[in-house]
Amino acid sequence: VEGTDLSRIVAFTDGVFAIAITLLVLNLDAPDLPDADLWGVIGDLSPDLFAYFLSFAVIGRYWIVHHRVFAEVQSFDGRLLALNLFYLAFIVLVPFTTEVLGNHGDTTEGVVLYAFVLGVAASFNWLMIRHIVVRGHVRDEARLATSRFSDRSALALPAVFFLSIPVAFVSPRGAAVLWAALLVIHPGLRRHQRPDERRQPSRS
Amino acid sequence: VEGTDLSRIVAFTDGVFAIAITLLVLNLDAPDLPDADLWGVIGDLSPDLFAYFLSFAVIGRYWIVHHRVFAEVQSFDGRLLALNLFYLAFIVLVPFTTEVLGNHGDTTEGVVLYAFVLGVAASFNWLMIRHIVVRGHVRDEARLATSRFSDRSALALPAVFFLSIPVAFVSPRGAAVLWAALLVIHPGLRRHQRPDERRQPSRS
Amino acid sequence: VEGTDLSRIVAFTDGVFAIAITLLVLNLDAPDLPDADLWGVIGDLSPDLFAYFLSFAVIGRYWIVHHRVFAEVQSFDGRLLALNLFYLAFIVLVPFTTEVLGNHGDTTEGVVLYAFVLGVAASFNWLMIRHIVVRGHVRDEARLATSRFSDRSALALPAVFFLSIPVAFVSPRGAAVLWAALLVIHPGLRRHQRPDERRQPSRS
Amino acid sequence: VEGTDLSRIVAFTDGVFAIAITLLVLNLDAPDLPDADLWGVIGDLSPDLFAYFLSFAVIGRYWIVHHRVFAEVQSFDGRLLALNLFYLAFIVLVPFTTEVLGNHGDTTEGVVLYAFVLGVAASFNWLMIRHIVVRGHVRDEARLATSRFSDRSALALPAVFFLSIPVAFVSPRGAAVLWAALLVIHPGLRRHQRPDERRQPSRS
Repeated sequence: VEGTDLSRIVAFTDGVFAIAITLLVLNLDAPDLPDADLWGVIGDLSPDLFAYFLSFAVIGRYWIVHHRVFAEVQSFDGRLLALNLFYLAFIVLVPFTTEVLGNHGDTTEGVVLYAFVLGVAASFNWLMIRHIVVRGHVRDEARLATSRFSDRSALALPAVFFLSIPVAFVSPRGAAVLWAALLVIHPGLRRHQRPDERRQPSRS
Repeated sequence: VEGTDLSRIVAFTDGVFAIAITLLVLNLDAPDLPDADLWGVIGDLSPDLFAYFLSFAVIGRYWIVHHRVFAEVQSFDGRLLALNLFYLAFIVLVPFTTEVLGNHGDTTEGVVLYAFVLGVAASFNWLMIRHIVVRGHVRDEARLATSRFSDRSALALPAVFFLSIPVAFVSPRGAAVLWAALLVIHPGLRRHQRPDERRQPSRS
Repeated sequence: VEGTDLSRIVAFTDGVFAIAITLLVLNLDAPDLPDADLWGVIGDLSPDLFAYFLSFAVIGRYWIVHHRVFAEVQSFDGRLLALNLFYLAFIVLVPFTTEVLGNHGDTTEGVVLYAFVLGVAASFNWLMIRHIVVRGHVRDEARLATSRFSDRSALALPAVFFLSIPVAFVSPRGAAVLWAALLVIHPGLRRHQRPDERRQPSRS
Repeated sequence: VEGTDLSRIVAFTDGVFAIAITLLVLNLDAPDLPDADLWGVIGDLSPDLFAYFLSFAVIGRYWIVHHRVFAEVQSFDGRLLALNLFYLAFIVLVPFTTEVLGNHGDTTEGVVLYAFVLGVAASFNWLMIRHIVVRGHVRDEARLATSRFSDRSALALPAVFFLSIPVAFVSPRGAAVLWAALLVIHPGLRRHQRPDERRQPSRS
């Protein structure tokens, strides 16, 4: 391999995603059990658990998109490395914004912080994939499939997060409904099982 | 490699398992040494250490099963990715339920929380392996061996955790005895050394 | 592969880098939202966020250099292993010095601690790369390209950090300006896209 | 690859080592800077920093031994997996015992806890390598080189930790001197650069 090594970038990125998604558990504080019955405990934990599962789904979704795109990448340059790092810098913030959302999910401030960080992450994701497609870092035969993550319709992802910010000033809970809708309509997970994947050779 | 990359899914999963199992140590609080003698220190730590080693064994056991099954997987689809993420979402909760168990292992609430999270994790594990077998994602010659993790007898694992919940309402400690029995009877570690593994070529 | 395995050293190092960069998020404390408006929250967080993004950029930069150099390494010895561990021991300290910088970035003590740890890390980095070049652990055709990380001009990196220490006694903020200048002038990210990298074969 | 996959065991182990060594930084508490001058800060941190660097060296040393041994392993069985997990369960405890040592390194209790955990880890390490050699999981030509980690002289490592326990009852600081001696005399890092490693082909 000449120059630098694509697989190390992917391994580093996987490590950061895996750690960020696992650190979400640190936001769950042990309840003070002797003072509460079982239902009281579950009730106290529910906002934290909602924030936990939401962020787990969001980070998992972002990771799947990264995974699909980089499976087709065959070269890179310094700008791609930099965009990937900028992107990760906002992914790593998610455990923090999740903690705020769990503690203060009914306030405008908590929701705006969450939406802003994920909107910026989604924007860097879009810019990174656009850079990959425009600069020809992707395999030729996968160019069309990859570009659906960087065309105008893919801007729906950052748009939903940014559009939820004004909504949060009116109704914090309305913003959460928007995000849930996003997770249903976004095509990130669709069409995974293409015919040519069925008989993929085992990892070496 | 066409489409997405199986090895990245495994690497990401390994990362999450490794982090979750290592975060268990954060539940051990440094004792206030000047106020206690050595035996007092060990006594104060013992419920936390019991919870630590129990969860280390449980996560380690789940990882070994994942490891055995995915060694035979040769393809995947979006549903497998999603099931794997749901499964990991409950594995990552284990450091939290371990903390609760260490602090309140003699209460019904602490034991129920622990049993419920591990029961759900075991259920997703079963569903994921069933999906792998039914959809033919596993190598043909390994289909039989793999299906023993997804047949009716493999439901014993989630069943023991869910059955320990009513037991915990009568006796929290009785539930812990049930789990210990589970770790002895469950066949996850048995028959590891098959003849064809003895002369396995070195990792490349 | 005879003896020990170069790829495991790289994987371990990547893991440490990924964890250290992700632990930076733990320095961000959830603000006490009900008592503050949105702008007050952002104002309170801004020193912590400045320290977060600075350290993310610094660790990311160091990782890129490590990545570029080790892509050309073809052998190693015990001293290289030891230098890599010494280097990592100071990289792992960065989340701690970042926390101090976020809490006390306007004090001489906080800035000196940060500059000292990064200066030592940069020195070990320089010594490690020098060892790689001098002992011939690098591929012959990459020797010239690699040696630019270990020649006299590459000493600019530790020098800027150590020189910022006396500056911090006069003006802590002046030291931060020096670091920002460093991140602009240092050639670590330059010339990444060399012709021979354009059509790099996909990772196997 | 038949059955299970050796490289995944190594990757999981590397992940656990990398996380455990990086979590050491969480034991360093940010000093209360406004109340102290620079030398006071450094003085307050010095026991924590001593414990940090000691444990970094110890975990790094254990990792190097694991790395050297598993580079020659070509097969495994369930018992090896189990011994590796038992071993890791005590490696993961090191960040906890390091915190206790940093806070209470001058007490018998803190030193005994540290010595006991590392003594048990060293014992499992010895048992694991012995199992590898006795069961023929190691490459034939590396059997002799590997067995020096599992012969009687290699018992010096756990012995030093266990022997330091009675010393700690007389003088906690005397035990620390013993460990420092251990790190100098133990042959784990020696003879790394064997002739056949010099021209090792690059990682694929």
